[in-house]
Amino acid sequence: MFLEDFEVGQVFRHPGGEAVTADAIKQFAGQFDPQPFHLDEAAAQQSFFRSLAASGWHTAGLTMRMLVDTLHIHGGLIGAGFEEFRWPRPTRPGDVLRLEVEVLGIKFSQSKPLQGFLYHRVTTYNQHDEAVLVMTGNLLAPRRPQ
Amino acid sequence: MFLEDFEVGQVFRHPGGEAVTADAIKQFAGQFDPQPFHLDEAAAQQSFFRSLAASGWHTAGLTMRMLVDTLHIHGGLIGAGFEEFRWPRPTRPGDVLRLEVEVLGIKFSQSKPLQGFLYHRVTTYNQHDEAVLVMTGNLLAPRRPQ
Repeated sequence: MFLEDFEVGQVFRHPGGEAVTADAIKQFAGQFDPQPFHLDEAAAQQSFFRSLAASGWHTAGLTMRMLVDTLHIHGGLIGAGFEEFRWPRPTRPGDVLRLEVEVLGIKFSQSKPLQGFLYHRVTTYNQHDEAVLVMTGNLLAPRRPQ
Repeated sequence: MFLEDFEVGQVFRHPGGEAVTADAIKQFAGQFDPQPFHLDEAAAQQSFFRSLAASGWHTAGLTMRMLVDTLHIHGGLIGAGFEEFRWPRPTRPGDVLRLEVEVLGIKFSQSKPLQGFLYHRVTTYNQHDEAVLVMTGNLLAPRRPQ
């Protein structure tokens, strides 16, 4: 899709798939976020999280994995950044995540006539319809060639 | 460290370590961000990035890996979210990343006397001192027990 193909208010959804396993949580954490509450059930019980919790970056990675299958922008998904980025709650073992992406704005560039930005909000939900990640920001999007 | 141990203006640094390899970039992307410009040199040459680029989420994961070794908050690093989150440029094969964390504010909670927030900015730099990730936000931090 090109920038012109989007409309404010459009919502794209990914139904989600496999449950997140405790093993996957520990494996990701071992590589990128080796903190006790992401690695060990007993340590997690003594922590802020009260039980094993996925790294927020693992949730972000799983979100990106779904986003790639959800939003088909010509040239790929190229993120400029976010102005809102929060984890309302952690992802837990057994959670099945799904995705909603809402189009909030279409920004045509003044300086670069061939491209613009898709202003959007990504919300990742667990199986209880609780948000685990909310990101609002811009994706680069090319304009449709004339 | 407890919230009282931090001061506005403090900077914590991680010197970085191993270079990011093309294999690691492709492996991460295969799992979490399977787009051609993160997976294949030839495809990347035809893309916005012009050569193989790491997923921004891979850069974020490598950043978190360094942050865990850099900032020692009692109870662990528990992120509330960011109000600024941007990737000024991609991480490339061969890049060696390093980290700087600046304390921007100490927020004591009104409602929860035992905790507060460390308002901070994380900047990840490559070996050319170019920022590849900038995140400004809050980490939960407990107050020193009386």
